[in-house]
Amino acid sequence: MLTVKRISKDEADLMIAAAEDKSSELGIPMCIAVTDESGNLIAFSRMDGGKVSSISIAIDKAFTASAAKNPTEFYNEMCRPGSPTFGIHTSNQGHFSIIGGGLPVVSGIEIVGGIGSSSGTPAQDIEVSHAGLDALLSHWEKTKNKK
Amino acid sequence: MLTVKRISKDEADLMIAAAEDKSSELGIPMCIAVTDESGNLIAFSRMDGGKVSSISIAIDKAFTASAAKNPTEFYNEMCRPGSPTFGIHTSNQGHFSIIGGGLPVVSGIEIVGGIGSSSGTPAQDIEVSHAGLDALLSHWEKTKNKK
Amino acid sequence: MLTVKRISKDEADLMIAAAEDKSSELGIPMCIAVTDESGNLIAFSRMDGGKVSSISIAIDKAFTASAAKNPTEFYNEMCRPGSPTFGIHTSNQGHFSIIGGGLPVVSGIEIVGGIGSSSGTPAQDIEVSHAGLDALLSHWEKTKNKK
Amino acid sequence: MLTVKRISKDEADLMIAAAEDKSSELGIPMCIAVTDESGNLIAFSRMDGGKVSSISIAIDKAFTASAAKNPTEFYNEMCRPGSPTFGIHTSNQGHFSIIGGGLPVVSGIEIVGGIGSSSGTPAQDIEVSHAGLDALLSHWEKTKNKK
Repeated sequence: MLTVKRISKDEADLMIAAAEDKSSELGIPMCIAVTDESGNLIAFSRMDGGKVSSISIAIDKAFTASAAKNPTEFYNEMCRPGSPTFGIHTSNQGHFSIIGGGLPVVSGIEIVGGIGSSSGTPAQDIEVSHAGLDALLSHWEKTKNKK
Repeated sequence: MLTVKRISKDEADLMIAAAEDKSSELGIPMCIAVTDESGNLIAFSRMDGGKVSSISIAIDKAFTASAAKNPTEFYNEMCRPGSPTFGIHTSNQGHFSIIGGGLPVVSGIEIVGGIGSSSGTPAQDIEVSHAGLDALLSHWEKTKNKK
Repeated sequence: MLTVKRISKDEADLMIAAAEDKSSELGIPMCIAVTDESGNLIAFSRMDGGKVSSISIAIDKAFTASAAKNPTEFYNEMCRPGSPTFGIHTSNQGHFSIIGGGLPVVSGIEIVGGIGSSSGTPAQDIEVSHAGLDALLSHWEKTKNKK
Repeated sequence: MLTVKRISKDEADLMIAAAEDKSSELGIPMCIAVTDESGNLIAFSRMDGGKVSSISIAIDKAFTASAAKNPTEFYNEMCRPGSPTFGIHTSNQGHFSIIGGGLPVVSGIEIVGGIGSSSGTPAQDIEVSHAGLDALLSHWEKTKNKK
């Protein structure tokens, strides 16, 4: 039997709230998704004005980051014509996102979840997802210190 | 030109929070989705322990309730062999849910959104979605009285 | 952070070997799939002569049993025209199997995986999946006693 | 009437075991799939820690290698913008993999199966699939010599 770590719903909510704050700061309403370590959706938010086409992109980014265990921007670099990884973007029924904005959530050496944002440029999407991730890491740091 | 009414992200959050409370009260962790008047996802929550297979079912219920403008249980009754509506459950690439737990959000004579819950029995799913819907209606009532 | 239990690859192999033995005993070559607690495939076997159409049915049964946390035959009973759960078989893009032969793997009060078999009658498929499940439970019992 | 040669379940198991050994040697848990000459799955293994997103990639690589009768890396080279084969990666509903790691199993002048691996770099995936293929070829050689 294996024992696996997974972010909780409360942790997902905390990430989404921080990502929403960053989106508001940037003035770009986003779609933000958080998945568990297996790539399954835990929480999702489409802010007022977030793009309809970004609903599935955000979810796919979070899925990819947690299931493939890398930031989605990593695969963007790897997935260029002539690169041996080119073509990975059509795998997983098109749900494998290679657009920046998907980040794995790492605890120790384990991937315990993923976050994905979409509606801005990839750079903006990455910034928003990072804000969500950083909020969780800060929360863990604070909780640890309390113990 | 049309002007369309649509529930906001804040209203979706309020619905999900109330639905989560009802789920906790029932002791059944749920997947809960809120869609806008066009059937597109605004917010989603999978509580700790909510079923993986219920992620898409909850989203489909909310989609169906807002897009088809009826509670999903209405279609369950209509969708029996011999009934002229039989077969509607395979439409929309299988996303047309006929299982109770999807409710349209009505404002005046307009459908302005939908809510869908899944992980319990259809009766429990309906109860949870109703809790979300009722919370929004109460909120509207209070806001109206304040003015 | 949540801590989740999941069957290992070795445990999945043990289940498949026992299910294959039961299939051979019945004289019906089967497709057999084992999934983790999130419904994702760990191991799969199509015995020589197993049906091509049963590849996805076996995988879907194992997915459903672990993701929906019930034997697939439970949903067959629930999913009859007129029943409030009718229609669930078209959910999850058709991957929600309501045909007997999918069983959740339970450890204590947790679902830690699933097994699905297909190529025979539902009764035969259930028998084969049960053989796989029983082998794991016996293995756990033996391992426990050694400690 | 045609007579078709096809690898057996035992041969598929032998390939997967050897591929798993190579994965362990590399320290990268993999997803490994073996298909028959028609591209249909015979056996699959996700080692503990193998990527969830690699489940379908491994299966797609094995499918492509046996169904298109070429190593998947061949198509990677052919599938560049301006090349007449560009675009083939979106065919077969996205299941046509052009990422190295899918190898056809050849017996004489016939394709009798395929193997696909995923979770590492394409070079690592190729190495793992080759280990599986080589094990089968060695086995055939030994069996032949015995007769």
